[in-house]
Amino acid sequence: MNNIHDARRLRIGMAQINNTVGDFSGNRQKILKAIKLARSLGVDLLTFPELAVCGYPPEDLLFKPEFITDNLKSLDKIAKESSGIDVVIGFVDDGEKIYNAAAVIHDGKLAGIYHKIYLPNYGVFDEDRYFQAGSECPVFIIDGINIGVNICEDIWYEDGPTKTQAFSGAELIINISASPYHFGKGSVRERMVTARASDNVAIVAFNNLVGGQDELVFDGNGLIVDEKGRLVARGKQFEEDLIIADLDIESVSRTRHNNTEWQKEAALREEQGVLISEKIVISERLLAAKKPKITTGKVEANGFPEEVYNALVLGTHDYIRKNGFEKVLIGLSGGLDSSLVATVAVDALGKENVVGVAMPSQYSSPGSVSDARLLAKNLGIEILTVPIENTYKSYMGIMAESFKNKEPDVTEENLQARIRGNILMALSNKFGWLVLTTGNKSEMATGYSTLYGDMAGGFAVIKDIPKTMAYKLAEYRNSLSGKDAIPASVIEKPPSAELRPDQKDTDTLPPYEILDPILTAYVEEDKSVKQIIDMGFNEQVVRQVARLVDTSEYKRRQAPPGIKITPRAFGRDRRLPITSKFRKY
Amino acid sequence: MNNIHDARRLRIGMAQINNTVGDFSGNRQKILKAIKLARSLGVDLLTFPELAVCGYPPEDLLFKPEFITDNLKSLDKIAKESSGIDVVIGFVDDGEKIYNAAAVIHDGKLAGIYHKIYLPNYGVFDEDRYFQAGSECPVFIIDGINIGVNICEDIWYEDGPTKTQAFSGAELIINISASPYHFGKGSVRERMVTARASDNVAIVAFNNLVGGQDELVFDGNGLIVDEKGRLVARGKQFEEDLIIADLDIESVSRTRHNNTEWQKEAALREEQGVLISEKIVISERLLAAKKPKITTGKVEANGFPEEVYNALVLGTHDYIRKNGFEKVLIGLSGGLDSSLVATVAVDALGKENVVGVAMPSQYSSPGSVSDARLLAKNLGIEILTVPIENTYKSYMGIMAESFKNKEPDVTEENLQARIRGNILMALSNKFGWLVLTTGNKSEMATGYSTLYGDMAGGFAVIKDIPKTMAYKLAEYRNSLSGKDAIPASVIEKPPSAELRPDQKDTDTLPPYEILDPILTAYVEEDKSVKQIIDMGFNEQVVRQVARLVDTSEYKRRQAPPGIKITPRAFGRDRRLPITSKFRKY
Repeated sequence: MNNIHDARRLRIGMAQINNTVGDFSGNRQKILKAIKLARSLGVDLLTFPELAVCGYPPEDLLFKPEFITDNLKSLDKIAKESSGIDVVIGFVDDGEKIYNAAAVIHDGKLAGIYHKIYLPNYGVFDEDRYFQAGSECPVFIIDGINIGVNICEDIWYEDGPTKTQAFSGAELIINISASPYHFGKGSVRERMVTARASDNVAIVAFNNLVGGQDELVFDGNGLIVDEKGRLVARGKQFEEDLIIADLDIESVSRTRHNNTEWQKEAALREEQGVLISEKIVISERLLAAKKPKITTGKVEANGFPEEVYNALVLGTHDYIRKNGFEKVLIGLSGGLDSSLVATVAVDALGKENVVGVAMPSQYSSPGSVSDARLLAKNLGIEILTVPIENTYKSYMGIMAESFKNKEPDVTEENLQARIRGNILMALSNKFGWLVLTTGNKSEMATGYSTLYGDMAGGFAVIKDIPKTMAYKLAEYRNSLSGKDAIPASVIEKPPSAELRPDQKDTDTLPPYEILDPILTAYVEEDKSVKQIIDMGFNEQVVRQVARLVDTSEYKRRQAPPGIKITPRAFGRDRRLPITSKFRKY
Repeated sequence: MNNIHDARRLRIGMAQINNTVGDFSGNRQKILKAIKLARSLGVDLLTFPELAVCGYPPEDLLFKPEFITDNLKSLDKIAKESSGIDVVIGFVDDGEKIYNAAAVIHDGKLAGIYHKIYLPNYGVFDEDRYFQAGSECPVFIIDGINIGVNICEDIWYEDGPTKTQAFSGAELIINISASPYHFGKGSVRERMVTARASDNVAIVAFNNLVGGQDELVFDGNGLIVDEKGRLVARGKQFEEDLIIADLDIESVSRTRHNNTEWQKEAALREEQGVLISEKIVISERLLAAKKPKITTGKVEANGFPEEVYNALVLGTHDYIRKNGFEKVLIGLSGGLDSSLVATVAVDALGKENVVGVAMPSQYSSPGSVSDARLLAKNLGIEILTVPIENTYKSYMGIMAESFKNKEPDVTEENLQARIRGNILMALSNKFGWLVLTTGNKSEMATGYSTLYGDMAGGFAVIKDIPKTMAYKLAEYRNSLSGKDAIPASVIEKPPSAELRPDQKDTDTLPPYEILDPILTAYVEEDKSVKQIIDMGFNEQVVRQVARLVDTSEYKRRQAPPGIKITPRAFGRDRRLPITSKFRKY
């Protein structure tokens, strides 16, 4: 081994940015700011997330030719301002079809392009709808360092581009991602990245997008793992970050040299001629960096429940702000869900931007208004009070003839919820505030909610939070402040919609600690009724829950978007017909 | 040429059925009934549409293992009851992954399987989400006749399976489809099927599904075209049908024998060894049919507007009935849209199953209630009247403090629409009737509608009908009855939401004859603002329309489903982010 190679080091930067779909000029400003900062810090090579130029996922905007052109123009401008630093950045490449692509920029010029090979088309993803899959898997030689670039899904395949590139000589694998958050995904990702690094004896630099986009939250949480599978750096979760690390590239060569298994596999692959990457030389200048030492950031991984809480805060902040709203409006019932949503909103937007509305009726418990007021006081937010009883009576008057000889039923309950929905929407229309809805996943699943009533609003913050998880989040948030934000009485009272005298959720639903695991099995894991009964749940209860889930599809179809938290959220993640006679209960 | 071959004839049947997603037993009953009838009519080979066993599209039901198993069991039962007739039928085949498949049943047994090769993943389709693509393209030899079977999308590709099968000897191509309707698609399909038949010198029997499924209507309209491109039979549009034709298979051999171009191409393909189908012999028995003559159905192709009207009637009927509802409820404003929807509903469900509700306010024109009443009289439907003024005043009372010092604006207009939405939903809850909404595509596109107000309901019948088309449909429907169903005064009055004094749609929107072509260009054709201005439209108007479309995405996301009529409907057909800063106006 020669001495020049011994000195091969690379200062890498990963810009974990929060961009906005379609905001070409805003995104570019953010990108150029990161480039400037990284250059001033002596970064040799700076990466940006998947489709950083245009935002992710752009969905059907990709069908607009102007969108593609604007994206190419923006990439061009970024390249021109990138002299003196190498950049790897996601954009939409144009050809006969379009590609989800990574640009390699060197010396202010576009020096190489990689096209994503594995296009995800499951869960929330629709990439086959838009993109042509790439078929080439090159290794770029930049400043004497062999680099494999690939995109998001590509790295999840053990025998995918990462392996091809590494065994063709790539010492550093750069993966640019837009990998959406769900609870627990961080550790899955870390295990995967660590396995790719150590299995292929390569440094892996995994840069992930951060920010909220409609139903999705991208959590950042970028990772650099060395060729021995050791964590070099971790980016912040749910925050923008610039992660910088000095990489000892020569160490990869040394480790491979001493690793007979790797040598054997590489020789075998070469002999069999399977999947050898084309080498594309971008720059032969050898880096022998003598630079001031930097401190590599190794943020601690977050655990439940703070991770989930932070996802809600970021998702709410970004939906509201990226859609141009300042303030939000929340109906406060004195119950757990609305209290939790108000707390998230305050943490996301500031107390001055959150307005609560108490809307008591004749069926509201005495604690309803007082708990809502106490919550508002604790959070320091404004609260309006609009009693609904007179309006309810007015409806009963105009409906009297149509309803004569009919007993009260769910109609009257829904009407109260809808009057409240109307009041919130009227305030929204008058003042330009967005309404946050407060339904949780257990309710969304079972249809225990009123369409156009408590479901009326622009964003459903805890739509993917099961009720039992909502309790844990409330307790977690209270543990952060010196005193309770959410009053103890709110957490302790039995859940109730308070739409008829002495109503309790358990009049209609099984207790949440039984309901939630059944829902997880049925909705997220596609378990059959029989399988869930075999797990030990009461047969009648399981059948009832399955029936409620199946017959509430029409309600969910008209629900506002909300933040994906679980492995399978309602929305684009789960696409069931409304019209279906597949009923197994 | 020998005499036995000279006699080669096949009586084919195409069962154009209206099945329901997930209704395995109901679908099977329908299928067995068709098999019995076809057998009694001397049919040799009977085809059913794509995924006929389980319904199309099953969406994420395909992730439920029980759904796949039930589908296989059902196919098995069908096969067992199919002795004495050959059947080609769509089902979900199971393996390492699942396939969109066609079963060839002979002698009561599963004799062959074809896996769909081209999986559509654009527009309303998500087949890559579910299915593995097939890779084999056999020719089945049944009773001495060479038959190529393929599925829907497969036949749309000129160089696809049809060509491979035909040039490998297939004389008859059977395509089983679930091809959704849009206006004008019938003639596109007919040109395509005719080209496949004459280009490949093969008889093509194209069997299409019929019926409504959520946003989609399948229009049937099956076709049999002979090897010279001549129409042999056409199935009914928007109705179930059993299409039967006696095919002269030997004529295909003769025509090929005399067609030097076909001979050359076949020889070339054999020489080059490109894409030769495997021959699978299912039955060598030769058919020399001596059967009573049958009359082949050649239904006339429908034109606009009756075709569109019929699509609305079938789509509405099937959504309501397949979801288990008897009656529907429609808010009647005395305007064109609600009158048209009521008329469609009566034609779909019968007058006894449609209830109108007039909900006048202080801003309603005198004609509003009288026109609604006249319409109800013409259609013979019940009409309820629920004035909203008192309830509106009650809201104004409880909101007075919050709204003090604020001028009236769109808030008060929306509130009236929402009171009406609440009344309809209260009647829906009390009596179990489904609410049909009445918004048209021009309104959906521009957001000229109230969320939770006139958008409240279960099914949006004319959601994909531009206003200018709604007028033509009303005139068409009136031309059918001896006297006007929709009063002339309804058609003649200027469109108005009647939510403030003397309001007209043109206060807010450009005239519909200008608006609609701009919307088609922008929404359906992805034309840019600049391109539309260049088409000759006023710049300011185009910019205003583009802004309205872009900023109304959040409303559309919470709209009820409705029937796809145009090449690109709102809904699963057009997937745009709500959060987007791509604004080019």
